[in-house]
Amino acid sequence: MTQPTAAMLVIGDEILSGRTRDSNMYHLAGQLAERGIDLREVRVVSDDAEAITQAVKALSEAYGHVFTSGGIGPTHDDITADCIAAAFNVHIDVRDDARALLQAHYDRQGSEFNDARKRMARIPDGATLIENPVSVAPGFTMENVHVMAGVPAVFQAMVASVLPTLTGGAPLISRTQRIDRGEGDIAGPLSDLARAYPALSIGSYPFQKDGRYGANIVLRGTDAALLDEALAKLEAAFPA
Amino acid sequence: MTQPTAAMLVIGDEILSGRTRDSNMYHLAGQLAERGIDLREVRVVSDDAEAITQAVKALSEAYGHVFTSGGIGPTHDDITADCIAAAFNVHIDVRDDARALLQAHYDRQGSEFNDARKRMARIPDGATLIENPVSVAPGFTMENVHVMAGVPAVFQAMVASVLPTLTGGAPLISRTQRIDRGEGDIAGPLSDLARAYPALSIGSYPFQKDGRYGANIVLRGTDAALLDEALAKLEAAFPA
Repeated sequence: MTQPTAAMLVIGDEILSGRTRDSNMYHLAGQLAERGIDLREVRVVSDDAEAITQAVKALSEAYGHVFTSGGIGPTHDDITADCIAAAFNVHIDVRDDARALLQAHYDRQGSEFNDARKRMARIPDGATLIENPVSVAPGFTMENVHVMAGVPAVFQAMVASVLPTLTGGAPLISRTQRIDRGEGDIAGPLSDLARAYPALSIGSYPFQKDGRYGANIVLRGTDAALLDEALAKLEAAFPA
Repeated sequence: MTQPTAAMLVIGDEILSGRTRDSNMYHLAGQLAERGIDLREVRVVSDDAEAITQAVKALSEAYGHVFTSGGIGPTHDDITADCIAAAFNVHIDVRDDARALLQAHYDRQGSEFNDARKRMARIPDGATLIENPVSVAPGFTMENVHVMAGVPAVFQAMVASVLPTLTGGAPLISRTQRIDRGEGDIAGPLSDLARAYPALSIGSYPFQKDGRYGANIVLRGTDAALLDEALAKLEAAFPA
């Protein structure tokens, strides 16, 4: 595959404690597949400076892009920006352009632009801002790390701001075939198919419904003609 | 905190490709919180032997328990058991007790116990089996790694088999207070509260609804009296 690679880092006590079911990972995974960027790994860590900093370093070195969600608000548990600065060993402080955006926003709202809110203008040296059309406080890109908010509506808006700026690959296409037989009966021919088409990723996702076994076979790749050829062989091996 | 620590490893091309929204992580996180086991990290990796093996090693060394989901079925993309054996540098082969369970199941069903199905009886040396009341093919525990299926109904049944065998800590309790003010107004007093109660984890989860800002403040800890005391101070700081 010649697709750029990516990882995601979810900063989220609320996911790890079982309070919230993830939605940002699901959203980003779908967007990256469309854009032809190969999401290889996701990590979820807690609001812990050491854990965040180490994960940013590891993922930033291993993958072409890293997308983070969470921890960039005004409260004491919002420590992501400082961790990014630490991971890249750069200075961080309130930056004029980010402060100006927020000042104008709170002036319009008639709210006080207090110290807590000024925390949201802390941007590591060398980063570029990511627009936030929902609630103004910006995200930022530091080298290959795109730092975004955890609130799903804001996260999605920031993803929409960032993705068009990245060079994608051929979009990942998939074909799905449901086969109403046990995986154990499908496995042999499926393995032959996987060997015959090394350029495709072929996955089997079993289910059990009303006491009957079946599996959804998903073929993924970037070449539509090749996918259709492999799908035809799969259908021939397991006539409905 | 004196709670045992844990991590989860999701082996899942279907999550990374955006096809499926996670449910196993959400389920396990809730179960571990109730059981008093502190879930510190989750990783999602693809069906890639090197990625799985390295993640198992790293998480197994860093945390008290590791729970994996996915990749233990009969098809070519089911490589988790072999990766676990590689991570612990032990031999793996079809094991008599696992084979007997499966043989009896397929005899009852009248299905052939073919080579693909025999793959599900491959168990690393030294592992103990995890019961699967849903579809028989067992999971296993290898040292501190609990290897379970990815199909949600089977995953949940295996979690129910494993958790009673583990020593838990005091269950994690939480109190949530919704405050209908912007996070920037809440942040100062909340930071004071977090400093006054270092034994509690205090998180702020902002929302925006119908153009109004608010946040759910979540206090977590193992001491109910301490939680109630901190909650009373929070309520006093922000009267409804």
